[in-house]
Amino acid sequence: MTEEDPIPIPEPAFEGDFLIEEVLSLESGEILVNPTLHYAIYGKLNAARDNAVLVCHALSGSAQVGAWWPQLFLPGGMLDLERDCVIGINIFGSCYGSTGPRSIDPATGKPYGPTFPLIGIRDIVNAQVKLIDHLGIARLKLAIGASIGGMQVLEWAILHPDRVARAISIGVAPLGAMGLGLNHLQRQAIMLDPAWKGGYYETGDGPKGGLALARALGMVSYKSVPLLEERFARRPNRYGNENPWISTSAGQNGRFDVAGYLDYQGQSFISRFDANSYISITRTMDIFDPVRAHETPYAAYSRITAHLTLVGISTDWLFPPEDVRSLAAIINAAGTRCDYREMASNHGHDAFLAEPDQLVRLLTPVFE
Amino acid sequence: MTEEDPIPIPEPAFEGDFLIEEVLSLESGEILVNPTLHYAIYGKLNAARDNAVLVCHALSGSAQVGAWWPQLFLPGGMLDLERDCVIGINIFGSCYGSTGPRSIDPATGKPYGPTFPLIGIRDIVNAQVKLIDHLGIARLKLAIGASIGGMQVLEWAILHPDRVARAISIGVAPLGAMGLGLNHLQRQAIMLDPAWKGGYYETGDGPKGGLALARALGMVSYKSVPLLEERFARRPNRYGNENPWISTSAGQNGRFDVAGYLDYQGQSFISRFDANSYISITRTMDIFDPVRAHETPYAAYSRITAHLTLVGISTDWLFPPEDVRSLAAIINAAGTRCDYREMASNHGHDAFLAEPDQLVRLLTPVFE
Repeated sequence: MTEEDPIPIPEPAFEGDFLIEEVLSLESGEILVNPTLHYAIYGKLNAARDNAVLVCHALSGSAQVGAWWPQLFLPGGMLDLERDCVIGINIFGSCYGSTGPRSIDPATGKPYGPTFPLIGIRDIVNAQVKLIDHLGIARLKLAIGASIGGMQVLEWAILHPDRVARAISIGVAPLGAMGLGLNHLQRQAIMLDPAWKGGYYETGDGPKGGLALARALGMVSYKSVPLLEERFARRPNRYGNENPWISTSAGQNGRFDVAGYLDYQGQSFISRFDANSYISITRTMDIFDPVRAHETPYAAYSRITAHLTLVGISTDWLFPPEDVRSLAAIINAAGTRCDYREMASNHGHDAFLAEPDQLVRLLTPVFE
Repeated sequence: MTEEDPIPIPEPAFEGDFLIEEVLSLESGEILVNPTLHYAIYGKLNAARDNAVLVCHALSGSAQVGAWWPQLFLPGGMLDLERDCVIGINIFGSCYGSTGPRSIDPATGKPYGPTFPLIGIRDIVNAQVKLIDHLGIARLKLAIGASIGGMQVLEWAILHPDRVARAISIGVAPLGAMGLGLNHLQRQAIMLDPAWKGGYYETGDGPKGGLALARALGMVSYKSVPLLEERFARRPNRYGNENPWISTSAGQNGRFDVAGYLDYQGQSFISRFDANSYISITRTMDIFDPVRAHETPYAAYSRITAHLTLVGISTDWLFPPEDVRSLAAIINAAGTRCDYREMASNHGHDAFLAEPDQLVRLLTPVFE
């Protein structure tokens, strides 16, 4: 397959909603009444129902794993739809089908908007278990995910050790101060936009400028200094006459190429994402702490029975590889076997999307 | 001197304005008519007028060197007011006395606001030379500065080699793509604020939320991952009840400690800085390129006769130390002696303000 060939996007065999007819108690102390999980299934469950692979998505992902991680379905690409049944489940808080800020709050009959409860990774995972129960799957062959997806994988392994055989968590550890700060500033950007209206904007309307700025800043945190340097250096914007050298007034916005790129990333995001969802999911990301409410790190991590692999990314500064490596060491110290592997990539946090070939090569020995 | 003792703030012997009664042609092709430089002098010029030290300031600095870099005036601190005459000059574009966006445009009789022309570092340095002429100083004993201050030092050494004996430029090189991107997003934050009004806000009014967000983001770029981790880690906000664990609604803004810190940095900035100045100076910072309009790097750097020292900061990701080291190598390759020294500091770009003691120790052998 050459670079010119488009990567085939596998189609789900099934896509639909799973209604949880319960009052879910959340980590935050709040509740979700009768929430829905939107999910997609690729391939088929075998008769033993032991070929299920759960692929957990990150901030802006969806249940459609085939759409955002198609390379994993290529020949030699870790997932094989002749062999595996791949499940993607949209997370609470998202705007891609599961219950989130755009959903109707049964208590008011109106969209949750900014009153959508604070969701923990555990709330997401515990709901996913109900769906996996519903599908008649006793144990996942593999749970894999990167970023917020990797957080879910870790909680699966800790909270439901008997339900997952192998677990691969990529580019993730509890967020450090830099990441917490950057996520906070992204939310502040959304709230600075007058169209934010405290979160009570009309669907389809909303704080587009603020969301675009938040996404652009997020994009900076997903990339790395060397990647941006290699791609853009100090070149002027590649389109139009917005050369920073041509603009003569300081108030004009003559852009370097990197600025044009970030603006484009922001603009292309606003039509596909919701600002309240962005706020909700970044807060879920912030509060992830697999040790919280366990007596000790040992108590949490010694629960794990899955064969667990953590992957760090060399240039990731949102989730620095040292943090991932150190998490693997803590898990090992709890008597749980945890491999650590590192992607050598200039792509920063986004390497799991940008260099899936390397990721597959790195993980193939684990997976086989 | 213990840490508890306040550092004495030296008072300038003179502070005032220098009117340049000329039409200055700028790098951008625009002009500044009869601009003013606000400056401060500490200590006294000796009879030979050969004891002048120019200290160039960064983004939010001022002519009052004693106020923002007081440690350099301590005993053993590089500057000795019995020996040296220290000069600080506010840069064009600032809101601290020199001509900037708040000044009256003689062409319209109104403040420049967003029409303030794009200023290059060379424009600043060429105007500074006129002031140094006015003071009767043939040659600076030393020009020293960090960040945008260091950019000025480099242009002094290149454009006016006969006017500066020693030059120390700290934490600076032409800004890379990451820095250009972050500066752009800071300007976008200002422009997102509805009080921005295209830059035509009333003095004292203006885009406070946008400026605060810009400053908070700037602050992130001046610090480092390890520093923020050491100071804040994942602790909840130290003031009040904004614990991120307590907030239950995703739309609430329960803050971690690092978020409280960044918000505070933003808020404390808006009363002392002007948004149009912030835009103007970050653009000046963006377009700095000491080679621009020279035939080759060799042509630019072989002009330097000053004893030049560049200082990199180990954890600086706005101006990575590799960039500063590589600039020193390029200058050396042009046949100009250029020392490179590196501060080992967790403080990131801000190390020149945060760890002046180390800076002084590092530079003392150069300076003596």
